[in-house]
Formats: sequence, structure tokens, C-alpha cells
Amino acid sequence: MGTVPLLSDEEVSADALAVFTEIREVRQTDFINNFWRSLAHDPALLRATWDRLKVVMAPGALDPLVKEMLYVAVSTANGCEYCVHSHTAAARAKGMTPEMHGELLAVIGMAAQTNALVTGLQTPVDDAFKE
Amino acid sequence: MGTVPLLSDEEVSADALAVFTEIREVRQTDFINNFWRSLAHDPALLRATWDRLKVVMAPGALDPLVKEMLYVAVSTANGCEYCVHSHTAAARAKGMTPEMHGELLAVIGMAAQTNALVTGLQTPVDDAFKE
Amino acid sequence: MGTVPLLSDEEVSADALAVFTEIREVRQTDFINNFWRSLAHDPALLRATWDRLKVVMAPGALDPLVKEMLYVAVSTANGCEYCVHSHTAAARAKGMTPEMHGELLAVIGMAAQTNALVTGLQTPVDDAFKE
Amino acid sequence: MGTVPLLSDEEVSADALAVFTEIREVRQTDFINNFWRSLAHDPALLRATWDRLKVVMAPGALDPLVKEMLYVAVSTANGCEYCVHSHTAAARAKGMTPEMHGELLAVIGMAAQTNALVTGLQTPVDDAFKE
Amino acid sequence: MGTVPLLSDEEVSADALAVFTEIREVRQTDFINNFWRSLAHDPALLRATWDRLKVVMAPGALDPLVKEMLYVAVSTANGCEYCVHSHTAAARAKGMTPEMHGELLAVIGMAAQTNALVTGLQTPVDDAFKE
Amino acid sequence: MGTVPLLSDEEVSADALAVFTEIREVRQTDFINNFWRSLAHDPALLRATWDRLKVVMAPGALDPLVKEMLYVAVSTANGCEYCVHSHTAAARAKGMTPEMHGELLAVIGMAAQTNALVTGLQTPVDDAFKE
Repeated sequence: MGTVPLLSDEEVSADALAVFTEIREVRQTDFINNFWRSLAHDPALLRATWDRLKVVMAPGALDPLVKEMLYVAVSTANGCEYCVHSHTAAARAKGMTPEMHGELLAVIGMAAQTNALVTGLQTPVDDAFKE
Repeated sequence: MGTVPLLSDEEVSADALAVFTEIREVRQTDFINNFWRSLAHDPALLRATWDRLKVVMAPGALDPLVKEMLYVAVSTANGCEYCVHSHTAAARAKGMTPEMHGELLAVIGMAAQTNALVTGLQTPVDDAFKE
Repeated sequence: MGTVPLLSDEEVSADALAVFTEIREVRQTDFINNFWRSLAHDPALLRATWDRLKVVMAPGALDPLVKEMLYVAVSTANGCEYCVHSHTAAARAKGMTPEMHGELLAVIGMAAQTNALVTGLQTPVDDAFKE
Repeated sequence: MGTVPLLSDEEVSADALAVFTEIREVRQTDFINNFWRSLAHDPALLRATWDRLKVVMAPGALDPLVKEMLYVAVSTANGCEYCVHSHTAAARAKGMTPEMHGELLAVIGMAAQTNALVTGLQTPVDDAFKE
Repeated sequence: MGTVPLLSDEEVSADALAVFTEIREVRQTDFINNFWRSLAHDPALLRATWDRLKVVMAPGALDPLVKEMLYVAVSTANGCEYCVHSHTAAARAKGMTPEMHGELLAVIGMAAQTNALVTGLQTPVDDAFKE
Repeated sequence: MGTVPLLSDEEVSADALAVFTEIREVRQTDFINNFWRSLAHDPALLRATWDRLKVVMAPGALDPLVKEMLYVAVSTANGCEYCVHSHTAAARAKGMTPEMHGELLAVIGMAAQTNALVTGLQTPVDDAFKE
């Protein structure tokens, strides 16, 4: 259904399989979601994407659940169906409650609305906001 | 510079001024940023936007700083210059450190990248992610 | 300030000048806005764009003011600063009142908000809406 | 298929059911489309969205059909499949003919094209367009 | 499944059929893809779109394969599922190898990421880049 | 003017300066454009972005000029002013002629237009295009 077929463990290259193995270890699950199975057509792109994602989504100054909700917010604004589904699921797995989900959606909707209003008004940025 | 002029306190209607007064009370500052001064051309739209924003951004299941960072994420994905500036400033005022800002940007950038990869690949959504 | 300089009447090719002449006749003004002056670097692209715009924006089943407001709506959603400015000005020139402008912005903002909510919810399309 | 299940009348809260009742009265139909059934997970968000939509889409300086076509324009630019379907259906129900639909699409396509050209050229806004 | 039904050769107008005939001749295939079958509801829009596409995608200073990959890039950034599918297929038909596809996706992903970072940072344009 | 100040060579950390040195070597110029000077606030993000960009934009199955034009296409679709400017300049430095620029813009505009038409029509993807 994609622009490339999904690759099974048997079909991917050794380099791609090594990434799958890492994903399984880090996530403590045997499940490899379709994103990685499509990316596996290009093992170097798969490796670079996974290596970076692992670092970016790790606990840091922001906690992993906040990062997943930020991911949902960006994915929603960009209209990425797959990403909205996968990161909403990930946020839930990390503790997002229905109340948090409702507030997440409300903020996303509010931001989309005022983004549009500001753009329609072409409001100039206040000096106070500039560095 | 906008598609409508910015209105001073003297130029707005009584209804719009009442909204300005509420904003000043809630935010504990005399400063009214340009967004509200452009919206004031339509006092009903100003009122509806403020009334809703006040509710959506209030503390709840998500804390106000997380909400501001979500707002920055959506505004960045939507390419809204004004909103990126104003909500980055608001997030800082609510405690966003440079480290948090760096991680916020890293997540936004990562999400934009994988959103694009998934869209280019047209990866089908895993059954596991569907409700 | 653009990625190409703006061309004056003296600098454009004969083909581009012929388009400028048509724009002046159709719009009954000597003013050629910057969009055409940047496009004039590629006279064939200038010609194709003008020829099509003239047809699309002409009175038809929809009146020209509605078409200008639709143009503002799309340009706002696409975040095109230049286009929001130029088509808001054009809509005003065709009779858009401040009340209409306020309602236009309110619809644009509402649509942006519910677009975002639907995308975050990934609501399936009702059978009733499909052809 | 969404990120939350669709709720039937039997599954929603009393607050959500009250909104459904209002929608049925205003629209003079028993049909509640999926958007509201997904939003019903968060009765406060459902209420706020419906209350605002009702006001924004009511007859005013712009007529309801024009508002629906503006909604289609924004939804198309934002790539919202559900919204394009639902508001195209709503526009037809309010009188949009095939000719009007064709012109609507032509304006949306033209705007998308010139938005892109202007952005690629980074054409500076004419002083004449600024307030 | 669309907002208009797909029209068969038997259902389209004579004007629309003439466009189909041209498409078949230029592309040396009997296959008319769904885009044209939906557009055929508005023969004038069909004609204008085809006439322009034919010119824009013809060999010129850029070769047709590069043009198809540019089309994929824009369609991906705009989140157009249909267009990503059809132009990826067209690029393959014109010689895009799996290696080229991988690099195309990598550039699209990288650009999306740095677009987002720049927007979040609101980095001012260097004087050196301005015309 | 950004959400963070631009950092001079004297202000950046040793890690960030090391990236600047690599950029200067690879690009054979002393000039460090503003993007890197804003990113330098987060040396790890700067390093990850530069390391990846260097790989993605290197000659491969696609030549560097094609990659720059793809970057312009994505940046235009995403409405990133800075990126359109910087990558148009980079494409010119790598040999993009005015004719190629004109065709690049024409393809970007055409794609934006048909993306919008397809989305408005919600045309279903042809089976022939699916993998």
C-alpha cells in the first residue's frame, strides 16, 4: 500500500536487521512497526533515523511523555496520519491519560486557530518578543 | 504592517477594552501584545478567542509550561512567525530553560523529518496503533 | 529582498511587457504589483500564470469577491504573507467590508481548528459524505 | 480506525448527549457525523467546539454557502480529508452546484500555485498593500 | 470515495474525451489515471490543467526525471497521498533507481527537519543570500 | 530578531566552534551563515544537524545541484523563508541557471496546484500506483 513494500525480517539486509535488533532491545518488544519496515529499503537512512530518534526521544530536560505529546502536536499540524497514530499510541504507553489527550487536542486546535488568525491579520511581532 | 492597523486602548470599542482589562488582570501586566490589538477590530472574535484561550491554557491535566511548548511546536509546524515568537517568550516566562528549548527544537525537527519520510513512503498504519 | 530582483518596465523583455500591458488594461490601473515584477524573469511563466489567473478569477458561477475571499483563505492556510496582503487588498477593492473580513477570519480560524482536531482524532469519514 | 473509538448515543456522557441533541435540532436531522462522535470523549471540548461553530457558521455578513466554501478551501489547503468530505457535502446541501464546485476547485488550485510561486520568489510585499 | 465520482470514457463530455485522447497519445498508453477521471467533471479545468502540465513537465533546462522527483518532493511536503503515489510511480518509469529514491527521501526528510529548526529559531536571513 | 541571538565565533562553545571549523573546511569559505549561528546555542543539536546534512547533501546517486533544487522545492512547500533564500543561493553556486530556476519554480507551482486539486477532489489512488 506504500510506495515501497514492507520488508519482513527475512527480507532485510544484515545492516537493517541490526537496527531492528537494537529497536527490539531498547523498546523491550519484538514488535517492529511498519515505519522501520519501509525505511529498511535504505539501510543507511534507517540507521541514521533510528540513531537520531533514540537520542532525541531519550529522557533529558524534557520527559519522554512530553516529548511524545510534542511529536503528536507536530505530526497533527503536518497532517501525518501514520505519525499521529503511532505517537498517540506511544504517548499512551508512556502514561498519557484521556484527560491529558483531551487537553493535548485542545491546545493543538487552539494553536491552529490562532496561527490562522495571526496569519490572516499579518500581525507584526511585538518588539518585546524579539531577542 | 498587518492587514488591519493595530488599535490603541483609545481606539478600541468598549467591548474590546473589557477584554483588554481581563487580559491585564489574568496576566498581571499592563502589556497587551499586538495579536489582541489586531483582533480588536472584531470585538466578538476578540472575545471568543480570549475566552477560549484562557480555558485551554489554564493548568489542568497538563501544566501550563507543557502547553506553551506544545503551542510552540504547532506554531513552528504551521510556520507562524508571530506565534513562534510570542509562545517561545511565554514558555520562557513560565520556566523553559535553554536546555528545554534545545530539546523542544530537536523533537520538532525530528518529528518534521519522520513525518516527511513516512509521507514519502506512504507507510500503512499498523493495526496495533488503531483503536 | 526576493530570490530574484524586481524588474522595472525598462528591464523586462518585450513578451513580459506585453503581459504588463494586459494587466494594466484589465485592472484599469497603471500599477503592476511586485508579484508580476518578480515573475517577469521568466516571461513564459509570467504569461501562463496571468492567462490562467485572468480566467479563474473572472465572474462566473461564483462572484469575484467570493473568489478573492477564497484566495485569502487558501493563502492564509498556506502561510503566504505576500498573498494574504495582496488578496485582502483585492477583496477590499471588490467590496469586502470590515464585517465580512471579520467573518472571513472567523471561518478561517474555525476551519484551522477543526482540521487540527479531526487530524488529531483521525476520525474516519462518514459513509454519508462519500460519493 | 481513529485514535479514539466513535461513541454511540448510548456511550456518551449526559453533557455530550446534550450537545448531540442541540446539533440534531439546529440541523434538523437525526444524523450525528463521526467528528462529533470522536470529540464526545471530551465533553468540554465537544461543547466548546459546537458552541463556537454554531456562531461562526450562522448567516451574517457572509452567507452560509460562502462560509462552507471557505471551509472547503481551508480544509483543502490543510490537507484534511475528513473536512474536505464533510464540508463539500455541507456546501452541496446549501446549494453549491457542480459549476460552483468546479470554480471553487479552480480558485483553490490557482491560489496554491501562486502561493508557491511567491514563496519561491520571496517577493516583497508592495507598500500599497500594507495598512 | 472522492468528493466526485470517477468518470469512465463513456460518461465524460466530448471536450473531456479529447483531453483523454491527448493524454493517451503523449504518454503512449491507454491508461488514464484517476486524477483525470475526477477532473473530467469540469472539462475546462481538465483542459487547462493538462495543457499546463504537458508544458511544465516536458524536457527543458531540467530533465523529466528531475522534474518528477521535484514533484514528489513538493507533494510529500504538502502531504498529498495521491500525488506521492502517482509521481513516485512516474519517477520510477523515467528511471529512478532505489538508490535515487533513498536519496530523494533523505533530502526531503533533511529539508523538513531544517525547515522546522529555522522556523523554531526564527533565524534572520543573511544579507549574503538576498538579491 | 530570532528567538535566540546569533552567536559569534567568540561566543560559541568549543564544541560548536569545532563544527564551524568543519563547515569552513568542507565549504572552502570563512562564511558561517546565520542558521549555524542560531543552532550553536545547542552544540549537540548543531553537531547532529551538520553531521547529517554533510552526508545527505554529498554527491551520490543524485548530484548535489539536484539535491539543492529538491531542498528549495521542500522549503518552498513548507513556506520557510530562510531556507528558500539559502538553498536558492546554494543552488546557484552549484550551477543553477536562470532557465533552470524558472523551470524549478514552474514545477513547484504546478505540483502545488495539482496537490490542491487532488485534495479537493479526494481522488482515490489508482491500484496501478500501489506497490
